[in-house]
Amino acid sequence: MQRGPPGFCIWLTGLPSAGKTTIAKELLPRLVERGWYADLLDGDEIRRGLSADLGFDRKSREAHATRVAFCAKLLARNGSIPVVALISPYRSSRAAARQEIGRFVEVYVSTPLTVCEDRDVKGLYKKARAGTIKEMTGVDDPYEPPEHPEITVDTVRFTPAQSAEFILGELERLGWMPKA
Amino acid sequence: MQRGPPGFCIWLTGLPSAGKTTIAKELLPRLVERGWYADLLDGDEIRRGLSADLGFDRKSREAHATRVAFCAKLLARNGSIPVVALISPYRSSRAAARQEIGRFVEVYVSTPLTVCEDRDVKGLYKKARAGTIKEMTGVDDPYEPPEHPEITVDTVRFTPAQSAEFILGELERLGWMPKA
Repeated sequence: MQRGPPGFCIWLTGLPSAGKTTIAKELLPRLVERGWYADLLDGDEIRRGLSADLGFDRKSREAHATRVAFCAKLLARNGSIPVVALISPYRSSRAAARQEIGRFVEVYVSTPLTVCEDRDVKGLYKKARAGTIKEMTGVDDPYEPPEHPEITVDTVRFTPAQSAEFILGELERLGWMPKA
Repeated sequence: MQRGPPGFCIWLTGLPSAGKTTIAKELLPRLVERGWYADLLDGDEIRRGLSADLGFDRKSREAHATRVAFCAKLLARNGSIPVVALISPYRSSRAAARQEIGRFVEVYVSTPLTVCEDRDVKGLYKKARAGTIKEMTGVDDPYEPPEHPEITVDTVRFTPAQSAEFILGELERLGWMPKA
């Protein structure tokens, strides 16, 4: 039940170390500046609060994405903009999230594997290559790139701040928010 | 990250058939009328979206309450009023929810067991007495009444609409919202 208009969900998908959370953190203050409530639903953070019981096999990842989508739906229908930063490697999971949430903007953070592996922010690629962790997306677990994302960002050519500005421009162009 | 002031959580606890959801449904339009975003986090409904994997044993109930509290926290910090209608039989779970959410108003729907069992809205007491379901709160699973709830409502003397009005009055008196 709403007093005002709904928000919508910005769903950032991409490989580990693609830059999803970094871009999300650039986006949030810009959304707030424009008068929105906005909240980061970061994959790792939400795992602690909502999915501590889940692992990283396919079924667990799907269940986790379902829970994140449920939270995003609640926020969006309460006028906020949930910004989801989640590897969400499977097309089927993202399609389910889109259907559940309705007002859904898929943003593909398209950083190539070689670049992600070079960045390796959390040292996970190194561990995966060494065999000390398993089910690492991009190494021994598949990542299925979006076929028709609303927005694609290129973190090789652009900084996180530039990517955030680009997303805002695209949101305007697509009619999700009025021009600043 | 917020553009404006936070909301707060109204957490209705009580036995099955105590009237939690009914009162919540009376509350919602009244909150919206006063200019708030508000959303019902109903125990049964949220189970489908968030906790389909969980049963009704103590550990599952605790995990479910943790997930509901996480959603309520997100909504409250985005300026909305989540109205939780959840048996939430254990004091420890409710204390954890209070700590997680921070801005938390515990409402005890104090309907006595005999009255709840007489109402038996979903026929669960009958099934529990017949032994066809187990772990039924009030029958073979404990309900721990709140010791210091912010608000207590008496559904024997008052209608759901009257209870909702009473809660609103108490929220004003306690400083959670301005007088209408």
